Amino acid sequence: MLPIISMVGASGSGKTTFLEKLIPELAGRGYSVGAMKHDVHGFDMDREGKDTWRLKRAGAGTIAISSPARVASIRETGSELPLEEVAARYFWTEDILITEGFKSAHFPKIEIFRSAVEPKPICGPENNLSAIVSDDPVEAGVPVFSFSDVRGVADFIENRYLKDRKKPSVLVQLDGKQLPMKDFVRDFLVGGIIGMLSSLRGWKTPGTISIHIRLGKEN
Amino acid sequence: MLPIISMVGASGSGKTTFLEKLIPELAGRGYSVGAMKHDVHGFDMDREGKDTWRLKRAGAGTIAISSPARVASIRETGSELPLEEVAARYFWTEDILITEGFKSAHFPKIEIFRSAVEPKPICGPENNLSAIVSDDPVEAGVPVFSFSDVRGVADFIENRYLKDRKKPSVLVQLDGKQLPMKDFVRDFLVGGIIGMLSSLRGWKTPGTISIHIRLGKEN
Repeated sequence: MLPIISMVGASGSGKTTFLEKLIPELAGRGYSVGAMKHDVHGFDMDREGKDTWRLKRAGAGTIAISSPARVASIRETGSELPLEEVAARYFWTEDILITEGFKSAHFPKIEIFRSAVEPKPICGPENNLSAIVSDDPVEAGVPVFSFSDVRGVADFIENRYLKDRKKPSVLVQLDGKQLPMKDFVRDFLVGGIIGMLSSLRGWKTPGTISIHIRLGKEN
Repeated sequence: MLPIISMVGASGSGKTTFLEKLIPELAGRGYSVGAMKHDVHGFDMDREGKDTWRLKRAGAGTIAISSPARVASIRETGSELPLEEVAARYFWTEDILITEGFKSAHFPKIEIFRSAVEPKPICGPENNLSAIVSDDPVEAGVPVFSFSDVRGVADFIENRYLKDRKKPSVLVQLDGKQLPMKDFVRDFLVGGIIGMLSSLRGWKTPGTISIHIRLGKEN
């Protein structure tokens, strides 16, 4: 799976504003960047009265719109999908996923901290805090970058999370739920799948392989 | 892959209105229905000034929002994704995908026809036309259902496209492009993958298996 970094911080600390500088910095270095937001209050991305909204209201669990430039989708999930699953489903060509929020997930975090907003950082080592962006004095045991040091944060992310992209990564899901596996099992599975596929016409060693299997209703 | 049916017809023929009746009829029979719309003019599902819009404008190629009830995403594609790929990527638990439009794709079509809108149906056998919904006299060599016969159309779809769900289906994509394979290769691949996975802890015969492999950049 692609590396996931969560930008966290109190409301009003400036997460989105900082991301608006960090994303182009990473994109400018040649990385394909995905971004994701957590909305605990729920949201309605679709507009009342539009066709897609009518189809969803009629009972379609998932809707999509495709155009020459982009594709959009809304899926009713009933309960919140794990961040890993959203990452694997929706960010299949990206090099890195940066999330806003998701403090309680176990992915590494960069906290945006302003002492005028909160007395002290909301994350610590127990939240897998890996760096802080702040112009205020802060004692945290992790690197601290100033708000203007966007390049420094990008260097940090690149060195820590984007250099080690040579190991293959695998996500296996049964009915959408991740099947955990050890490293040697993962290597065995990847080797087996590549062995089977590489003898087929049309095979050319790819960057990513996706396999979707739908078993028969009776199996 | 799940069955795909395209509802086609001239603009103003009432495709969305008919789908608003057909989708709940199919959902009421226990099928999980996905819906998809084609927008040749492009669209902007996101709203100016919202955080997700800011992240996309900053250079994120894909954005997503996740909430307890639903997940939404927008992906910049550069060129139009094939319908098959959108179906496999976004409709992973649905039993059937009904599209509005996509006349030029090769999937079976049901045409919504009104003689007040068009002199004759816009689809024929060359478009894989499988039925017509019309209250006007029409000669087409395929079953014709009246607008009020929503159950008849649902029966037709169920009998023709939803009975044969026992065969496993497989979609393999290398860098997002489908790798074609013959039936016996498909069975061999499915058997091999299930053989490897079924010995792992956590295995329970599922309805769907998804495998996402990301090979190292140097491979």
